Amino acid sequence: MTLKLHNFFRSSTSTRLRAALNLKGLDYDYVQYVLRDGETRTAEYLAMNPQGLVPTLETADGQFLIQSLAIIEWLEENHPEPSLLPRDANGRARVRALSYMIAREIHPLNNLRVLFRLRDQFRADEPAQKEWFTHWVITTFDSLEAALNASDQTGKYCHGDTPTLADVCLYAQVWNNKRFDIGTKQWPTIARIQSELEQLPDVAQAAPPRQPDAA
Amino acid sequence: MTLKLHNFFRSSTSTRLRAALNLKGLDYDYVQYVLRDGETRTAEYLAMNPQGLVPTLETADGQFLIQSLAIIEWLEENHPEPSLLPRDANGRARVRALSYMIAREIHPLNNLRVLFRLRDQFRADEPAQKEWFTHWVITTFDSLEAALNASDQTGKYCHGDTPTLADVCLYAQVWNNKRFDIGTKQWPTIARIQSELEQLPDVAQAAPPRQPDAA
Repeated sequence: MTLKLHNFFRSSTSTRLRAALNLKGLDYDYVQYVLRDGETRTAEYLAMNPQGLVPTLETADGQFLIQSLAIIEWLEENHPEPSLLPRDANGRARVRALSYMIAREIHPLNNLRVLFRLRDQFRADEPAQKEWFTHWVITTFDSLEAALNASDQTGKYCHGDTPTLADVCLYAQVWNNKRFDIGTKQWPTIARIQSELEQLPDVAQAAPPRQPDAA
Repeated sequence: MTLKLHNFFRSSTSTRLRAALNLKGLDYDYVQYVLRDGETRTAEYLAMNPQGLVPTLETADGQFLIQSLAIIEWLEENHPEPSLLPRDANGRARVRALSYMIAREIHPLNNLRVLFRLRDQFRADEPAQKEWFTHWVITTFDSLEAALNASDQTGKYCHGDTPTLADVCLYAQVWNNKRFDIGTKQWPTIARIQSELEQLPDVAQAAPPRQPDAA
């Protein structure tokens, strides 16, 4: 039995998890869902994941793990090498904080169901959705750039010279930003780290266009 | 030297962290900030916390830790007893997932700066803000109630019979919901657990009205 990844190619949380699985050298079966068609709102899917969100990781012993960052912490505990968290507690706190800046202050505000809600409640059209999306990216990327620049713990990647949880979150968010043509030029440290990440085959293989359902 | 908690009484992320500190029996100095007055947007505060958000935990050795859940993981590693995470990896994955359902799918959508943004970009008045806020609470509390009901690991609290990270997130969110008069009646398991949590002095002491700046 191998791991089974229930996900969607364009989902940013799915991209994070694919990058983490790849970096840890873990094989998985790829199970695809079309969010717009409601394929994660079926009774069968909701029994695995009561939120009807992607990703869900089905383990070899039949557990269904949900919430991408909780899943990555589980992977870290069950498959510790190579590690995606530093060895020291202060380093781990920094990496988790950088990760949560993205996972908590950008992504939840910008995902598909939020954009739909803006459309439904406030008649937000595509330009208004872009303005909203861009606002939250800029707000947190400005802070993230400052945090990365302020610390001598920033290395080749967000923390030191090996990729961590923060990097898989960053990589997925930069991909997600392309939805509204947001590049990285105005954040030189983020741009530099993203360019390093793109050169890692395990990370690059997690990119949305490389997935089987990206056709 | 003791811990120094930079926070705001009504902040939900601050409430989580206060509950965790209290449950672990850790003393801290309480430093208050008025968010509406921009007191977390000063150069001095931004040097501690580049996002200008609360809470920030200043450690005895002068580190500034940010992002409430990253701080609680740090507390867990440095002050492991009493533990706010189960001993088994699957249990920890469940507790983190329940926590992140709240910390990622409700709170980031409903905090003050988001309500301000809705007002500024979409002219959302108080009733429209309430509709938005309530929508996201219902969406995730429905899933959370289902997740709690579906598992025999749910006990007196969200996971077993001792309070965990999930409980401090739940407790803080139920408090936050009072802003728009959202109670817990429609979610009986959540209501039951909240009532248990209110009986724990360490948790109840973290409630917004009990803080020095709540006057």
